[in-house]
Amino acid sequence: MSIVTIIEYLGTFVFAISGLRMASAKQFDLFGAYVVGFATAVGGGTTRDLLLSQTPFWLDTPGYLICTGVALVFVMIFSRYLIRLENTFFFFDTIGLGLFVLVGLEKTVMLGYPLWVAVIMGMITGAVGGIIRDILINEEPLIFRKEIYALACVVGGLIYCVCHHFGLNDIVTQIVTIAGVILVRFVSVRFHLSLPALKGEEKP
Amino acid sequence: MSIVTIIEYLGTFVFAISGLRMASAKQFDLFGAYVVGFATAVGGGTTRDLLLSQTPFWLDTPGYLICTGVALVFVMIFSRYLIRLENTFFFFDTIGLGLFVLVGLEKTVMLGYPLWVAVIMGMITGAVGGIIRDILINEEPLIFRKEIYALACVVGGLIYCVCHHFGLNDIVTQIVTIAGVILVRFVSVRFHLSLPALKGEEKP
Amino acid sequence: MSIVTIIEYLGTFVFAISGLRMASAKQFDLFGAYVVGFATAVGGGTTRDLLLSQTPFWLDTPGYLICTGVALVFVMIFSRYLIRLENTFFFFDTIGLGLFVLVGLEKTVMLGYPLWVAVIMGMITGAVGGIIRDILINEEPLIFRKEIYALACVVGGLIYCVCHHFGLNDIVTQIVTIAGVILVRFVSVRFHLSLPALKGEEKP
Repeated sequence: MSIVTIIEYLGTFVFAISGLRMASAKQFDLFGAYVVGFATAVGGGTTRDLLLSQTPFWLDTPGYLICTGVALVFVMIFSRYLIRLENTFFFFDTIGLGLFVLVGLEKTVMLGYPLWVAVIMGMITGAVGGIIRDILINEEPLIFRKEIYALACVVGGLIYCVCHHFGLNDIVTQIVTIAGVILVRFVSVRFHLSLPALKGEEKP
Repeated sequence: MSIVTIIEYLGTFVFAISGLRMASAKQFDLFGAYVVGFATAVGGGTTRDLLLSQTPFWLDTPGYLICTGVALVFVMIFSRYLIRLENTFFFFDTIGLGLFVLVGLEKTVMLGYPLWVAVIMGMITGAVGGIIRDILINEEPLIFRKEIYALACVVGGLIYCVCHHFGLNDIVTQIVTIAGVILVRFVSVRFHLSLPALKGEEKP
Repeated sequence: MSIVTIIEYLGTFVFAISGLRMASAKQFDLFGAYVVGFATAVGGGTTRDLLLSQTPFWLDTPGYLICTGVALVFVMIFSRYLIRLENTFFFFDTIGLGLFVLVGLEKTVMLGYPLWVAVIMGMITGAVGGIIRDILINEEPLIFRKEIYALACVVGGLIYCVCHHFGLNDIVTQIVTIAGVILVRFVSVRFHLSLPALKGEEKP
């Protein structure tokens, strides 16, 4: 098992936990919570694969289903300690985000699409899982209002494009891209940065 | 018209009615209610077909659109008697669920996917229509909190796998699978069984 | 740039603005608002393309992303004058709707699908963007309750079928179809026509 695969499963694990915790707060039953956790973890990559006419990646191996199952058991056992692990979750969530974005970028480029499509697909891979989670629990998508999240994915994508433009080698490009996503996310959360709201309408 | 086709249309009919009734309770207009009814009836199979890179099944024949139209007229005419038909609806809804799950299982296996993918697709065929319905009417998905519904689909899928493992013939496998879904659903509703909620978070 | 392309971008522009304004009313941040605007503008065509196993049209050119960006800047600058432009928006929105429906009809027929599928895809191209917008901002889809919107798309589709049946030439068919959508929409809004609600249920 490569280091990338390990981090990818870690990313899946923490994304699933974010879905499970939201579902738990809404009193969803075990099965419903599992579905929300799974959709949060694989929703972004699935949307990307459907848009690119590919078979969803999680149909290749039951690993992602099992990983979500482990996350469910984890939440059931350690529920009362989860709040204390907030920082640990944030750490892995951010690393997972960086890797998800990179996976989206590379898969798109490999299929022969132009770089601007790759930037979109990197963002979709990283951010759409959270949007699907919020739709399933019937909340307004969090990433549309709080924190710089989807924008971190786009910044990572743009860094990836710049690296390609200057012909940097693959390893450097990958590390710099992931680092870019992580950095933007860390800095924005650390200094409570967020985008301004779009002004314009008083009432819906 | 085979017995399977007849039951399949009956399943579509009752799934559509469940969508129409929910839409009616939300004061949707006739066209909006029709869309919700149709999405409830074909949403599961459509999601399955998109994930498996197939053309959605309801593009092969206008039968499913017509069937939803008949359901709409039925609800308009018999609206005041619908409550008394609750048990009849439940009966056909459960049979429809069993058959939808079987259709999902067989289509997936026929396309050469492994059995664990078939179990997921059987569940998606049976349960996702109801999730889409609840998203469209802006409610938290019912199946995530009430009654054993999606789990009945999974149990049916597992029974199907066991039958395959022991090399049972097709007819027996099909009957036992449908019977499994129906039995789990009937028993859980009859004895008010439901899965425990996932504990862990106090607030969202 | 052909006249059709110009009108298509105008349609994209006003559809994006409708999404941006709704997102603004919900205090979404700039990036979230952009995503909602883009999903409103391309959501219908994307759903159509996925159902017809085609690569989503907006992956062919970054034009639709740029167009949404221009719409975002427009809303930011002219936010306080937008209300006065209500009639102008309605004008272009309706023309955009007519053209979106036609694009959906022609693409479907060109792919060899029967006419009834084209009618559905025309409706999906025109109306699903608004449904996705309302799901993202967590509101009940507007088009299910207010005004004749999706039905105008269907009427346009039926006119298109009649033209085909009588073997009218392409230009006439296209103009009559767009005119049909626009006329139904204008008349229904002008005379406050709406479909009756589906009666049947008192409570959900």
